[in-house]
Amino acid sequence: MEKNKNNKKTQLTELRQDLVTGDWVVIATGRAKKPEEFASNKRSFIEEDHNKICFFCYPEETEQEKDNLIYERANGDWSLRVFPNKYPAFVSGRVPKHTEEGPYFAMDGTGYHELIITRDHHRQIAQMDFLEVAEIIDAYQERYIDLMNKKSVNYIEVFHNHGKEAGASIAHPHSQLMAIPVISPYVKSELDGAESYHKMNKQCVYCTMIAWETEHKKRVVFENDDFLAYCPYSSRAAFEVWVLPKKHKPYFERTSDSEKITLAEALQTAISKIYKALEDPAYNFYIHTSPCDGKDYPHFHWHIEIIPRTSVWAGFELSTGIEISTIQPEVAADYLRKI
Amino acid sequence: MEKNKNNKKTQLTELRQDLVTGDWVVIATGRAKKPEEFASNKRSFIEEDHNKICFFCYPEETEQEKDNLIYERANGDWSLRVFPNKYPAFVSGRVPKHTEEGPYFAMDGTGYHELIITRDHHRQIAQMDFLEVAEIIDAYQERYIDLMNKKSVNYIEVFHNHGKEAGASIAHPHSQLMAIPVISPYVKSELDGAESYHKMNKQCVYCTMIAWETEHKKRVVFENDDFLAYCPYSSRAAFEVWVLPKKHKPYFERTSDSEKITLAEALQTAISKIYKALEDPAYNFYIHTSPCDGKDYPHFHWHIEIIPRTSVWAGFELSTGIEISTIQPEVAADYLRKI
Repeated sequence: MEKNKNNKKTQLTELRQDLVTGDWVVIATGRAKKPEEFASNKRSFIEEDHNKICFFCYPEETEQEKDNLIYERANGDWSLRVFPNKYPAFVSGRVPKHTEEGPYFAMDGTGYHELIITRDHHRQIAQMDFLEVAEIIDAYQERYIDLMNKKSVNYIEVFHNHGKEAGASIAHPHSQLMAIPVISPYVKSELDGAESYHKMNKQCVYCTMIAWETEHKKRVVFENDDFLAYCPYSSRAAFEVWVLPKKHKPYFERTSDSEKITLAEALQTAISKIYKALEDPAYNFYIHTSPCDGKDYPHFHWHIEIIPRTSVWAGFELSTGIEISTIQPEVAADYLRKI
Repeated sequence: MEKNKNNKKTQLTELRQDLVTGDWVVIATGRAKKPEEFASNKRSFIEEDHNKICFFCYPEETEQEKDNLIYERANGDWSLRVFPNKYPAFVSGRVPKHTEEGPYFAMDGTGYHELIITRDHHRQIAQMDFLEVAEIIDAYQERYIDLMNKKSVNYIEVFHNHGKEAGASIAHPHSQLMAIPVISPYVKSELDGAESYHKMNKQCVYCTMIAWETEHKKRVVFENDDFLAYCPYSSRAAFEVWVLPKKHKPYFERTSDSEKITLAEALQTAISKIYKALEDPAYNFYIHTSPCDGKDYPHFHWHIEIIPRTSVWAGFELSTGIEISTIQPEVAADYLRKI
């Protein structure tokens, strides 16, 4: 705290640099919310028409016909199913055609867009046991491996939206997978950052962070033998948590069966702690892994980023790409760790 | 339209490349909303305690004392005032101190954070006349010029949040200005893109787009002698509009008095068309101009970006930085133009 010329107390704010990308975040604690006060931004419910049956619960009785089923986990009754998205952002079927209009350039959005649906309409990841989450991770991996060598698929995004503020439009818990022809700017920024850090320092930037965090513990939320869950030093959002393999692993799809269990434990524990701390907030998580474009990415380190949606991007964030967080990651981690 | 193997019609989707940054957006019209259907995502009202007086209406009667007043426009009674933000994201007062923690790096969030407040609590920009908007632009410029040479100010962000979904927390119309020590990643990406386009093509990338758009008209929303308002080819959001000076101008702060009037006309017309088309949506706008870091940016072309908030970023957008728009910019522009 320091005083300004009008003799009011002014909280200092901090610009923290992302060690991988070089981007900045602002940690501005002037509004000085306590960790428990973040729970007040309750997520809003997704409106459901209770006269209609949920087509994720009963796909065979709705437009989402069984014919479209891509993948199913069943032991007697089904527990997990994968369908194509009815309104895909990327559409399979042909080599992308390129279009020009004067100075501009476009190409077809060729690819795949799938929905990974668990059985129970009311059971979200925060309430699942580790084996149920391991089954979801297993489905991510199976679909990933099936699509990674398809023509014109160069990257596969796996992500999960929970709650309206996180962009979910359907209440039934589900994840999504988009297999796309381009490497996205955010992933490219991490790939480039990891490569140049390795050139400079002869070590993986993520391994460097993992070593520091597991030694000092103050941002650690949970860890087991294989995985670390922690609030990153330059968190973009309040209560952001990353889950990373402790050993250097560039490729998510090579996760072993035993690692799927320990990953499920770390991911489910982090999500259920966020669920309790923020009282069932909207959140997203997504996997950042090496592209499947035929090149090698030995310096990258795959990981999952969990982003609770406790605030919205305003003009500053939209204009700059610099996010303003109102809680220190150390304080958020301490709160989550003790839950 | 093409048919997939299940004989359902599938709308093709398109990846459009941003000519300046090289980034991608997805235009996925599968959900096939008509332009008039976007209005249904009404903005939510910001809760106000009507027992308390608004401290933007009566700053002298609240904690926001008159002592703090930075700037005032008054002709008898005041019409526009500038105050420091009570909860600043950037704090003035000293040369930023750098901090290290193991592999990480941070610095103090040194800078300025101001609020630009117009008089009428219930009169938003969509309802103002051009001269009122010109007064706001004039205040942006005056504050910009006052802060641009301050120590450790390298960029000045000017932006406006309208509505809760756009991050506004106070109902009284106001803009914000943040004078910051770093060049943000989004601005840097545009600066770098404009420079390398100029190297390759010997012309300004924004001038190239302006020439194409004013010739072909299909994405034009409004134009006058000095300014063009149009929906960009690679719009990130539905009904996004950019306002640019038609002549090559790198520096917002050099806008002339007569240009402030024509800019006000273009900006106010664009905002009031969005207001009518989407029935008072939440939106942000912000200025992207050359940094004030002492370097020259002859290839950059300052502009305003207006982003209606008709959808929220979900996991895919957070993970990739690739936004999915559900309306073609040509269709949005046609709808706005005819209003």
